[in-house]
Order: sequence, then C-alpha cells, then structure tokens
Amino acid sequence: MFSKVLIANRGEIAVRVARACRELGVPSVAVHSTADRDSMVCRLADEAVQIGPAPAARSYLDPAAVLQAAAQTGADAIHPGYGFLSESPDFAEACEEEGITLVGPPADVMAVLGDKASARALMSKAGLPLLPGSIDPLDAPEAEELAREIGFPVIVKAAAGGGGRGMTVVRGPERFAEEFRRTQATAQILFGDGRVYVERYLERSRHVEVQVLCDGRGGAIHLGERDCSVQRRHQKLIEESPAPNLPEGLAERIRASAVEGALAAGYVGAGTFEFLVSPEGEYYFMEVNCRIQVEHPVTEIATGVDLVREQIRIAAGAPLELAQEDVRLRGAAIECRVNAENPDLDFVPAPGRVEEFVPPGGPFVRVDTHVSTGYSIPPHYDSLLAKVIVWAPDRDQAIARMRGSLNEFVVSGPGVHTTRGFLDRVLADDRFRAAEHSTALVAQILDAGEEGGEPA
Amino acid sequence: MFSKVLIANRGEIAVRVARACRELGVPSVAVHSTADRDSMVCRLADEAVQIGPAPAARSYLDPAAVLQAAAQTGADAIHPGYGFLSESPDFAEACEEEGITLVGPPADVMAVLGDKASARALMSKAGLPLLPGSIDPLDAPEAEELAREIGFPVIVKAAAGGGGRGMTVVRGPERFAEEFRRTQATAQILFGDGRVYVERYLERSRHVEVQVLCDGRGGAIHLGERDCSVQRRHQKLIEESPAPNLPEGLAERIRASAVEGALAAGYVGAGTFEFLVSPEGEYYFMEVNCRIQVEHPVTEIATGVDLVREQIRIAAGAPLELAQEDVRLRGAAIECRVNAENPDLDFVPAPGRVEEFVPPGGPFVRVDTHVSTGYSIPPHYDSLLAKVIVWAPDRDQAIARMRGSLNEFVVSGPGVHTTRGFLDRVLADDRFRAAEHSTALVAQILDAGEEGGEPA
Repeated sequence: MFSKVLIANRGEIAVRVARACRELGVPSVAVHSTADRDSMVCRLADEAVQIGPAPAARSYLDPAAVLQAAAQTGADAIHPGYGFLSESPDFAEACEEEGITLVGPPADVMAVLGDKASARALMSKAGLPLLPGSIDPLDAPEAEELAREIGFPVIVKAAAGGGGRGMTVVRGPERFAEEFRRTQATAQILFGDGRVYVERYLERSRHVEVQVLCDGRGGAIHLGERDCSVQRRHQKLIEESPAPNLPEGLAERIRASAVEGALAAGYVGAGTFEFLVSPEGEYYFMEVNCRIQVEHPVTEIATGVDLVREQIRIAAGAPLELAQEDVRLRGAAIECRVNAENPDLDFVPAPGRVEEFVPPGGPFVRVDTHVSTGYSIPPHYDSLLAKVIVWAPDRDQAIARMRGSLNEFVVSGPGVHTTRGFLDRVLADDRFRAAEHSTALVAQILDAGEEGGEPA
Repeated sequence: MFSKVLIANRGEIAVRVARACRELGVPSVAVHSTADRDSMVCRLADEAVQIGPAPAARSYLDPAAVLQAAAQTGADAIHPGYGFLSESPDFAEACEEEGITLVGPPADVMAVLGDKASARALMSKAGLPLLPGSIDPLDAPEAEELAREIGFPVIVKAAAGGGGRGMTVVRGPERFAEEFRRTQATAQILFGDGRVYVERYLERSRHVEVQVLCDGRGGAIHLGERDCSVQRRHQKLIEESPAPNLPEGLAERIRASAVEGALAAGYVGAGTFEFLVSPEGEYYFMEVNCRIQVEHPVTEIATGVDLVREQIRIAAGAPLELAQEDVRLRGAAIECRVNAENPDLDFVPAPGRVEEFVPPGGPFVRVDTHVSTGYSIPPHYDSLLAKVIVWAPDRDQAIARMRGSLNEFVVSGPGVHTTRGFLDRVLADDRFRAAEHSTALVAQILDAGEEGGEPA
C-alpha cells in the first residue's frame, strides 16, 4: 500500500477520498486553494497544504503546484477525484515521470480514451456498436455530406470534449455548415483542439453507463449499469442503479460490451463506459470516463462495493478482490445532486454562507457532502452542495424515500438557493416514475412550466 | 392503511417513525412535552401536539394525555417507539378500548411476555433452553436452597423488570438472603411488583438476540441475530449483526428457537428474543422485547428490510411481504450509541446546547439522530444523541469505518460531552476486534484504566 496519498481535488469528492484513505489506514494529504482553507477535507485529511489562489487554473488545475505539494509531503500517490486534472494525460505522464502513482489508468490509455475520435475507433474495432457517423474528424464539406447520408438530426461533437461540453445538435442541412464551424471554434477555445466529428442524434434516448473495475492483470469486471438520463444541458441531475425498465437481456449485453471495451483498451482502475439506448432498445457506445464519477455512489449502494477503496487498492498493485459472479445488484439506488443554484433564475449559481444545514438521515439514506452549518460556499467552483443517495428494495420505495429526504433537507442562508425543489418535481413526474423518460425529460418539464409537460 | 399515525415518543426514534410514515404515505402526528417543542420530529411530522410538561410521567408516560392527542387529531394508530409506554399492557388495552391500533403485539401477549416469570414458563414449554433456575417467583428460603442447588454465582431478577434494571448478581451463599430481599424491595419500588426469581449467572456470556417479524396470520420469520455484548451496567453501547464468531450452526439454532417462541406466544409485529450464549456454545432464553429496539438499524442494514415500515404494515393488517428464504444477511453492520455523557465522570449525563453538530457521512454510514446545530439537549430524558450505523463487506472493515465515523463526528457545546472517545476505545480493544469479548468487556476496560484490561 502507499505510504501517503495526496488528494488533488476539493468539495465532496475530496472528503470521499479522505474517508477511503482513512479506512485503508493510509495517511492522506489535502491540497486546497486560499478559498478552501476551512474546507471539510482539511479537517479529515492528515495534512493540508495550500497550493494557490482561488481560481482553479492557479491551484487545482496547476499540475506543478500539485506535484510540488506531493514532493513536499512525501506522497507517493495522487487521487485526482473527478474534473480538474483527473483526465489529463499530460498530468498522468508528469506523475509517471516523478515516480508518483496517479490513481487512474496509465497516461497512454487515458490519451487514447480521452480523445473521442480515437476512442470510437478503438471501440468499433473491439466490436462495440457505434452510432452512425464519422470515426475520424472531418472537414465541413465531408461532414455535411455524411450528415445527409446518416440523416438529420445529427450531433457535432468535439473530439477532445467531455462532460457535456462542446456539442451541438443540428436539425437540418440548412444550418449545418455554420453550426459545424461554430462547434469547431468553440472546441478550439475550450479544449485547444478544434477537431470535431459527426454522429446521428437520437431524440429520445436514454443515457446508460456501465461501471467497470480492472486490475491491469487481466481481471476486469462490471458492477452493473447506471441510468443517468435526467440531465439538464448534458449535466446529470439524477442517477440510478440498476437502470430501470430496460428490455429483456439488454442490460446484460451493455454490461458485456463495457467489459470487452475495457479489456480492448488495456484499462486499469475504475472506469465508466457511456452508452445511448434508443427507444427501440438499440445501444451505442459514446465515450469512456477515466475517473471516478460523481454518480459512483449508486453503484456502491446497489452492489456493496466501495469503489474508491478499490481504485486505491488497484493503483497500489492489488488484484481484484471480486469475481464477476460475486457482484450482485440489490434493490434500487437513486442519487440526487443538490446544487446551490436558483431554478427560478435559469439555475444561476446561488452561493453564500449556509446558516442552517441539516442533512437528511435514517434508514438507507447516504449523504456525501463537504458542507456543514456555517460553511461559506465559495463562488469559484461548481455548485454541487451535496449528493443524497437512497436505497430501497424497489424503485417506487426508493423514489418515496428520496422525496422525503429532499423534503427534510434544510439548507438556508442569505442568497443561498438549492435545486431540492426542482429535483422533487422531476421525481414526481409520471414519466420518471414509470421509467419512460429520456434525456429530454428535464427540458420537457421546464418547457411545460409548472404544470408538467407532454408525455415523452 | 391507517388514516393517521400518532408517534408516542421523542428523540431519534420519533424521527425514525415519522420517516417511515412519510414513506408509506401516512400522515403522522408528533406529540411532545414543553421541553421538546422545537424538536426535529415536530418539523418532520405532519402535525404536532403538546401533551404536557417536561417530566415524562406527565407527558410521554401519561396514557390519558397520549390518547387525548390521538382523539383530538383523529389518529387511528399509535406507534409507541421504545421505552415510555411501548411495553405497557395497560396502555395497549386502553388503546384497544378506544378502537386505536397500537403498533405492537396485542395487550394479552404483551402481558404474558412482559412478565419474565410467565415468559420463562411459556418459552420453557415451547422447548426453548432456559438457564437453570426458578420458573415461578420464590420466597427467600426456597430461593436460597435453589441457589445452592444450581451453584453460585446466581442472578436475582425482578419478574416485572426489563431494560437491565432490577437485577443483582450474588456470588456466594453468605450474602444471598440479604441481596434477595434488597432486590425484592427494589423491584417493588421500580415496578410496583416485588416478585423476583433466581437464575444461574454466566460470568463470560455473550448477549445474542434475534429479530422476529410475525403477521398474526401464521407468518413468522427471523431477520438474523444481533450481538449486543458491549454493555455498561446492562445498558447496550455497541451492537452488531450478524453476531460474529459463533460456533458452527449455533446461530441457526438460536434463530429457529426465536421463531418457535414467537409462534408459541402468538406474537404479532416486530419483536426481539434475547438469549445468553455461554463460552461453551450453550444458549439460554432470557426475555422477549415487545417493541422496536434501539439497535434495530443493524438488522435493517444487514438485511435490507425496513423494520419500522414492516411494523406499521403488519399493524394495519398486511401479511408479511418476505418469506424466510428471502432474508439474507449481507456483510457486517455495527451500531454505536453516542450518548451525551461524560465518560471521565462515570458517564454522568452531560446535556446542553449543541453549538456545532457535524454528523459523519459517506459510503455505508447511517446516522439516526434528532440533533442538529443549535439544538439544546434537554436534561429530562435519556442521553442518546445519535446512533451511528455502518456497514462493510466484513467486520474488520466495518470496525475501521466506524472508528473513522466516530472520529469525524463533531458534537460540541458548553458542558456537552459525548461517549465518542470511549466507544472508540472499545472498538480498538483486541478482545472486541477478535470477537472474543463477553458482556464483561466494558467493565474490564474501565477497571484496567487507560491502558486496556486483561484478556477475557
């Protein structure tokens, strides 16, 4: 095992990693910006090092600052959490050069999978079904010809994109050239890489993703799938495991594809294979996430497997403890991301000082948060306040439990708003309750105003 | 289902019941003393009724006040929680007369099982093993003769006792007559019933209890056992499920005995059969608890069954949803009762205003509490602040998780002390870690001072 793990992140995921280190008996180091000096992880970790000012580019996104903190504290491993440096092949390579283990796949695997074009090519070769579209990045005239061939609507995606950014849906040929060039320009600005590709766009699809664990010694298992179809502008709001209401046998085929893909890529650690599922029950590979994900707890609660613990163990060279047949999904797990945003003002961030914070509790309720009474939410970072995760023997009971938990959750302070109420509206929606929703659900609810929308 | 459930309790168990009602879609009524008017359950329940002043005898223990609140709010069921009126056959009978369903077994079953002498007689007839001793209450000369026959040490117990009160261990004949009479007198004062009986006293036994659920229609199942051997003066501090380190097959025999006993008693609802287990692997029936118990969460977390939900469903006339073969214990669950007491001053209650309260969270950690930042712990009631319950695939990991959770739990305020640190000492003890401890463990640790005690 490592002698010390540095946690290169903040917020709830930093707390999550600190707890996993503690339970493994490994000392941990929190790094923090000046804005985060009073954060919960600084209390939970064994050491805390300030690495820069509030803007992430000068602290959490600065590879040199993070590596300097590791050298200074003698950390021999870095857990990057999600976001920030977690999927940067350059950072992974810098760690390798410094002789520090990054908890995640090797830099070269990260590089191939982080590029959507090369990931598509690799997965196509491995036999995973892809949406009709281009494998290689195209120029505008080639792309328009391809778009006409596969049929509108299409989606133009940045090869270097991810996390729901750098994507444009184009509904007909008349605006294609313009939107294509605009996405190229955006991709260049966002990712420093203007390459884009074209795929068929599925209007009423579901987002289904599979959690895998690979030990780099040939051991590769899945831990079931998550449905993350409740999204606002490609940002997930509610996730669940197992995915409800999939046609017979489909979940098994998607899970098997993920394991095949992971083996083909030489994957190591915890990873997620994302798929779209059409209303007709076809599924298509989208991308691989080379990090622990925000929504990992639903898999943990449904399977009983501590994914962060497994990540760290695997990074330390340990083989998988579990065989595929040991993995059982039990009951229904749901996660809601409670954000400090104002749903009445188009979800504008609403940070501030939290004067009262009473998380929900009781049977089968888990809260992952870095917030407590008196905490001031800094305006510099993402707006995730807390993840509420519930379990129940069936999905209806899990929904009831989640609605109750959101209802009793107290978060208040001047200027602080949360998405609690909006999440409850989604949970109460008939389409969600029947598990007949698609990734369009949130837009449908918002478009329909207070009264609820048309059936999907 | 009921139209409204009144919660005749306070503290964390009142919150627990309110959550169960909410998830079942049943409106709930909180009753509270003047000291509890700002309590969490008053916020979570649909209605709140003040039923009297702070002393429990004039509020939570006053049957007329509780029944009056039920009449006033139109509640057709009462959940009594634990303690207070939860095991009073008189209250159960009064509810029956008013046409209100008490969530628990019928008054006559409660009467038979509440009297330890009649419970022993019934269970002996049902074939459950009893410790050598008297079935019927005895006078002093008869009792001393019996004590010499079964051999010292013996324990003199009040027939009407329970909850660890009204018991005296007698180690030799010389003091027997005096201790016998003193226990009779104490029983008369505590329970208004001076009858006592005599049993062999096991020095190094473990406390193992079995959770049962019976639907009153012939359906009777167990939900595995709990080990509650970590006790201070017969009060449980740490409980776990399943019981670790039992000889092969013993757990199954104890579980089967509990179900046989429940059927023999015509039990209805959730109940607990308590046993002592000797170092030689013999087990002996002790008593039945006709209520939900403080330690019920470890069974919930190990089995996935919501016991309070099942209690309410059964009281409403529903059959058991589960068959015995559906019940599976998974992994290891541990509960710690965190009390507002000062371990350095012989565990004297240490209530006060809680100025900072940050419960632990994260994977497989459950907190049942009625406390939040700013809450003033009233001095009138028991000192339970919060129950921390953890789960892990194995007991070693569960212990590590619990120690971390206790460590990060922040409870502070002027005059407020907690048992967190003491609980951690028990969890760190080699005898506990090896599951080789007995009910004497806490006394051994306390007797040995800060350095830890002799092996059991």
